[in-house]
Amino acid sequence: MKTSIILFFMMMATVALAQQNVGYREGAVVSPQVNGDGSVTFRLRADAAKHVTVVGDWATNGGKGTMTLGADSVWSYTTPALPSEMYTYRFDIDGVVGIDPVNPFTRRDVGNVFSIFYVGGGSADYYQVRNVKHGDVVETWYHSDAAGADRRLSVYLPPSYGETDKAYPVFYLLHGSGGDETAWLELGHVARIMDNLIAEGKAEPMIVVMPNGNFSKQAAPGETADNLGFKPVMTNMLGDYKNGAYEMAFTEIVNFIDGKFKTIPDKQHRAIAGLSMGGFHSLYVALNYPGYFDYIGLFSAGLMSDLNTTREAYKDEDMKLARLSQVGYKLFWIGIGEDDFLYDINTEFRHRLDGMDFKYVYHESSRGHIWANWRQYLLIFAPQLFK
Amino acid sequence: MKTSIILFFMMMATVALAQQNVGYREGAVVSPQVNGDGSVTFRLRADAAKHVTVVGDWATNGGKGTMTLGADSVWSYTTPALPSEMYTYRFDIDGVVGIDPVNPFTRRDVGNVFSIFYVGGGSADYYQVRNVKHGDVVETWYHSDAAGADRRLSVYLPPSYGETDKAYPVFYLLHGSGGDETAWLELGHVARIMDNLIAEGKAEPMIVVMPNGNFSKQAAPGETADNLGFKPVMTNMLGDYKNGAYEMAFTEIVNFIDGKFKTIPDKQHRAIAGLSMGGFHSLYVALNYPGYFDYIGLFSAGLMSDLNTTREAYKDEDMKLARLSQVGYKLFWIGIGEDDFLYDINTEFRHRLDGMDFKYVYHESSRGHIWANWRQYLLIFAPQLFK
Repeated sequence: MKTSIILFFMMMATVALAQQNVGYREGAVVSPQVNGDGSVTFRLRADAAKHVTVVGDWATNGGKGTMTLGADSVWSYTTPALPSEMYTYRFDIDGVVGIDPVNPFTRRDVGNVFSIFYVGGGSADYYQVRNVKHGDVVETWYHSDAAGADRRLSVYLPPSYGETDKAYPVFYLLHGSGGDETAWLELGHVARIMDNLIAEGKAEPMIVVMPNGNFSKQAAPGETADNLGFKPVMTNMLGDYKNGAYEMAFTEIVNFIDGKFKTIPDKQHRAIAGLSMGGFHSLYVALNYPGYFDYIGLFSAGLMSDLNTTREAYKDEDMKLARLSQVGYKLFWIGIGEDDFLYDINTEFRHRLDGMDFKYVYHESSRGHIWANWRQYLLIFAPQLFK
Repeated sequence: MKTSIILFFMMMATVALAQQNVGYREGAVVSPQVNGDGSVTFRLRADAAKHVTVVGDWATNGGKGTMTLGADSVWSYTTPALPSEMYTYRFDIDGVVGIDPVNPFTRRDVGNVFSIFYVGGGSADYYQVRNVKHGDVVETWYHSDAAGADRRLSVYLPPSYGETDKAYPVFYLLHGSGGDETAWLELGHVARIMDNLIAEGKAEPMIVVMPNGNFSKQAAPGETADNLGFKPVMTNMLGDYKNGAYEMAFTEIVNFIDGKFKTIPDKQHRAIAGLSMGGFHSLYVALNYPGYFDYIGLFSAGLMSDLNTTREAYKDEDMKLARLSQVGYKLFWIGIGEDDFLYDINTEFRHRLDGMDFKYVYHESSRGHIWANWRQYLLIFAPQLFK
């Protein structure tokens, strides 16, 4: 009987190869291959191709590499040693740009799908899964009276959550233009970063809430009743970004979270931060609700102060900054990359803060408006919360 | 000032185009385009290509279509009218197979990434998001003493969950070989199907639990400490599939769920079903724990009865079937496609059941061992539970 079992499974394994969507990799080229020195080798089988490049988001050579055809009929390219990070890349094969066919791991960023890999030995060690206690990730929906709709948000619960009646502080973490409630989880690696920081005792156990900042949308592309008709593009900036509705209705989210989860519902136990558009949102939520957040973070913030506006969310900015100062906060953190196209706007904003003696901590990093910076800012910002 | 705002945002929009990962689609070809008659048009810009095909999972022409180059320099192909379903496809461009570059919506199935689309007007209307009340989706981890590890599982909570102290029945839904705890959510569209069935009053509000059936693994590929070193392949059948450890330790999962969520912890309010390997698992969990489940579903089950085995999980099968009959159950459901490579094995199993007067409901569908069938079986099975 034992022989027949083995025969059965051999048969099944063979038949399974003919089944749908099976992706055995035996005999396939290995790509990407992260080498011991932090360099990365890409390989591709493309027999009819004339010109193949890899296009990634690392800094060296602008993330571009020309692949060469080897005697083994495999195109390949090896990068210089790369700093520890999570990287995205695609292959450009004679003008058609797509993912690495033998790498099953991808991320969508705005409207494109990218292959990914990690170079360890630094920041990326926090983005990857370790054998530590893991928190829960919850996709849930709150009702917004202001939007007249149910809206989706992502929540990270720390590993110990729910085991006792213990309540936790809450960190609201906002995405940028073109992002959605999945962006900080998928591209920001929030659950892994928090699991790892908490396991090392570097961050306090906390709830992290990731709402959707595109106020006219209920959820991420593909997760609304528009379904695949809602193509991910950059946020309509003159509509969603700047009309103030999201910021003014932000307490709906806070109330929902305080009602649904075991939170410590006070200013000392609330933080808010965001990247790009989410930095803009974070600023104006904090300015309009000065009793709400002791920790405020602007990551490459898309700041656009309009000192003459009459919109409730944005008007009287200097007064609101002064009021926030008076009410008090523990940390107002500004981070930006030296190559960011928003660098000058952030510098002007800091000069205004300096002029009114508004206290903040400034962090200037290398590079520009990229996820690598936002992940690294999170690694710096989160450990400072609720201590 | 208003002009300067608009200028700023125009500037930002322009600059943003030069930023990372922005995928504006203006001017790009439209693909796929689902036409009013259920046919689907694929388009691709590939100027250097010699031969382009689309390879999908619809039945007509084996899911294959040869694309032709139009005068507009765009390759295109239109399928015949397709039955309502969710479909996956890729383009084969001179031997390099990849996703549709202008379709941001993908799913990983085992080791490959596919572009997706829906043809509405039938089953697929349940797979897509509607404006109904949505349940929560939770990714959580239970500790398995048997595996000596924390293991990840996915949980769907019905829309009303948590609003009162009401407790809910639980449906355990198991994936197949090559799958993991994300498969039923991502490819099976469980959250949307349950939201829509519940909203229509066709299914009872219930908790759906989707564990990971690869017992030697803690979680899906990329979600374990092996990180990207764990490539998704078909389950090691002689190891994980058939050693019985998962089935015998299944009560660890049930106890965890009953401890963490508001469940009705009795046989009348528990169901178990699974596809392929998960059907095999479901059968032996149900046989070894006859007091646990009133509803049992085998979807294209990878049945392999070994009547001479000495393994605890699988031995004395006839006795266990008789015992299950005696203890009682409300529904024992077997579904399989007429083209499935497991068709004969399922027929033999049914003949054994007939021989011992073991009651079951049999559903035979068209086609084979494919997700379309498993989604459709779920649409048939779930409405019969807990009534």
